Amino acid sequence: MAFEINTDFLNELKLLIDARNSKQVTNFLKELHYADIAEIVEELDFDRAIYIIKLLDDEQTADILTELDDDTRERVLKGLSSKEIALNIEELETDDAADIIGELPEKKKQEVISHIEDVEHAKDIVDLLRYEEDTAGGLMAKEYIEVNENWTNLKCVKEMRRQAQEMEKVHTIYVVDDDSKLKGILSLKSLLTTSAKTPVKEIFDAKVVSVKVDEEGEEVAQLMQKYDLVVLPVVNDLGVLVGQISIDDVVDFITEEAEKDYQMAAGISEDIDTDDSVIKMTRARLPWLLIGMISGTFAASIITDFQTIMKTAPALIIFIPLINSSAGNVGVQSSAIVVQSIANKSFKGKLLTHIIKQLFIGLLNGLVMASIVFGLSQLFFHTELNISITIAIALVTVIINAAVIGTLVPIVLNKFDIDPAIATGPFVTTSNDIFGILIYFMVAKMMLGF
Amino acid sequence: MAFEINTDFLNELKLLIDARNSKQVTNFLKELHYADIAEIVEELDFDRAIYIIKLLDDEQTADILTELDDDTRERVLKGLSSKEIALNIEELETDDAADIIGELPEKKKQEVISHIEDVEHAKDIVDLLRYEEDTAGGLMAKEYIEVNENWTNLKCVKEMRRQAQEMEKVHTIYVVDDDSKLKGILSLKSLLTTSAKTPVKEIFDAKVVSVKVDEEGEEVAQLMQKYDLVVLPVVNDLGVLVGQISIDDVVDFITEEAEKDYQMAAGISEDIDTDDSVIKMTRARLPWLLIGMISGTFAASIITDFQTIMKTAPALIIFIPLINSSAGNVGVQSSAIVVQSIANKSFKGKLLTHIIKQLFIGLLNGLVMASIVFGLSQLFFHTELNISITIAIALVTVIINAAVIGTLVPIVLNKFDIDPAIATGPFVTTSNDIFGILIYFMVAKMMLGF
Repeated sequence: MAFEINTDFLNELKLLIDARNSKQVTNFLKELHYADIAEIVEELDFDRAIYIIKLLDDEQTADILTELDDDTRERVLKGLSSKEIALNIEELETDDAADIIGELPEKKKQEVISHIEDVEHAKDIVDLLRYEEDTAGGLMAKEYIEVNENWTNLKCVKEMRRQAQEMEKVHTIYVVDDDSKLKGILSLKSLLTTSAKTPVKEIFDAKVVSVKVDEEGEEVAQLMQKYDLVVLPVVNDLGVLVGQISIDDVVDFITEEAEKDYQMAAGISEDIDTDDSVIKMTRARLPWLLIGMISGTFAASIITDFQTIMKTAPALIIFIPLINSSAGNVGVQSSAIVVQSIANKSFKGKLLTHIIKQLFIGLLNGLVMASIVFGLSQLFFHTELNISITIAIALVTVIINAAVIGTLVPIVLNKFDIDPAIATGPFVTTSNDIFGILIYFMVAKMMLGF
Repeated sequence: MAFEINTDFLNELKLLIDARNSKQVTNFLKELHYADIAEIVEELDFDRAIYIIKLLDDEQTADILTELDDDTRERVLKGLSSKEIALNIEELETDDAADIIGELPEKKKQEVISHIEDVEHAKDIVDLLRYEEDTAGGLMAKEYIEVNENWTNLKCVKEMRRQAQEMEKVHTIYVVDDDSKLKGILSLKSLLTTSAKTPVKEIFDAKVVSVKVDEEGEEVAQLMQKYDLVVLPVVNDLGVLVGQISIDDVVDFITEEAEKDYQMAAGISEDIDTDDSVIKMTRARLPWLLIGMISGTFAASIITDFQTIMKTAPALIIFIPLINSSAGNVGVQSSAIVVQSIANKSFKGKLLTHIIKQLFIGLLNGLVMASIVFGLSQLFFHTELNISITIAIALVTVIINAAVIGTLVPIVLNKFDIDPAIATGPFVTTSNDIFGILIYFMVAKMMLGF
């Protein structure tokens, strides 16, 4: 069952740690999953955390390290010698090991690698360190089970038995030819349900989806989702099997990407958390606020230009915030829909079709909103009739424009290979703030004849 | 390797379909993965789509059905008789079968179930239909491999061989006692690396994470992520193993939730896509736009109340949009961070700590922005010095207030068990629009002494 940390538990553990009661602490943690111990470590101060880490055996510590937050892991690793880190790393699969080593400073990285006793393991890790973090190479592990197409079923089982010793979980058995080129997969079902003498060649499935080592993480995630894969084999340019990506790493990747997109849409430029410092938060937030100020400044100069009209029809002023927020909201909605369609690859059809559709949506939304504003301005604000009509018409125009801009900007950015996700933030909001206020006053000028 | 649809391919296929050249069409599609054929079906009109669906064998059709968009699937299912649907359903695992049957109108649902020949399969599907879509019960399948703790290794392999016939993939072997209660899991590694006579009791792992059938989907997703699980066993209130949730279904769930959150943050109230009709899009977008209008109307009456101040210091008017957009942006940023921390369970600490932190962040951001606005108003807009100072001070106050509201609203909503994700949308924006303009004029009134 799932485990929940509570204060009593934590306090008791802290007392035991402070009393250096190693036996009791070990007993306390024995029954827990490493992911739960990692959660506990997150809650402890540095000294207590290190005490636990050094107390547990290398295999447990290694697993715990993989589950810690980046910040906590960095702190914990600083408290361990290169030798100690190497002992932990030995226990990990290559992908997790490479992730941890990759975070170390260059000097310590070399030291840790030199302390790893299993030369094959060290070689695999060094190999993985070559790849960019968010590519297939950066996501894969070197642990997988590989059988030759020329073997029999029986030989496969024997070989698997040997290879499985080093692996935590076995999901897929890859079939390769004599040149180690990936030929297909052998399902456990086929292996279990055919006779021992059957040659692999006859029972493997040649329909196998694979990726190249340099494929982008996003593409990997989409492939695994589309084909419902738990593991995905990775090949080099020659088609030789070089690694395997496991879905749990991709799930983490998908979640991180979704969080990044969500933050980007909210105008946050670095990955931050409520725990982060005031300075880090400000650094992540200020850039977008400054871009937002550009639109405010433009709007200010537009209003300055239309001073005359405001003196004659001051009622126009009171609806400035409404025009502003409506343009902003409509723009964000339109761009969010396009951004998401592009991201999940469901976006299709001609640009013109989308624009025309947005014209109609803008018109429909705009008419409803304009009618309400017309009513409000007449009933509550006792605006003159011609000015109420002006405001209503201006609002419809502003909304249609915002819907079209919101749709157009991400499509155009995408054409130029700029991540359209950034569009819901700065680009659309800024341009809608400016165009919204400009259109509002231009319509007013035309209608009221200045 | 991955497959990409192109226009030439599609056109050729359409010609073959129109010529009713069943042999060639079959050849054309033979080598493709069902997820790819589903993509092709999405691109075809109804008649051609149905032609393909009826041409392929039941197993292929069944898999294709699971991969189609909801809308397309609904259309395709309308083109098939209950008998035909039942034949397809027979080929699917219970979770996919239940998902498809669950989408049918009540009458057709009953007909399809009555046409399923395998009584056990039908019973399992009917059983799954009882559960809410987004719960563990709604996500699980009835297919899994179960062995008794009292068996030997050898007997396990034999039993697995029998049970595996009905399953696509085998990932985990569950160990149960004589009452079918879940006791643990047996890893393939242990099975492969111990002798045939070893009793299961001695080699299974009792540390197993499971969920109750009525657990929420979000909880399931978090557990599977936290413990890096590929499958998760589901038990009833008595601890009896009743099903298994597979990570690929959870990945889809995570993606859908992320998309919903993203859309909610952009003020869209139903799940929509660029393909949807103008009416559906308007229905999803209008509610939030109308809420946004409330703030605009409030702002209008606030401005009306401060008419006097604006006549004396018209420079205040030109910065209304800047005040508005700054308050909005800061509020959205603050709430997005809190919403996300709550969602990924990293949110902790006292309310007061968060508020104080936001005060500082608001102050820091506000001071930078106010300095710029002060400079701009002096250099470009030639505002009187005391009015420039007033605007700068008002801006800092507005921003601090927006940061605090943005933080407070999601925390409070969460306390009252309302999904805080909705906070980044209507609540925060509306209150910031209103408070922003109110604070702006109140500060101006105090400073300029009206």
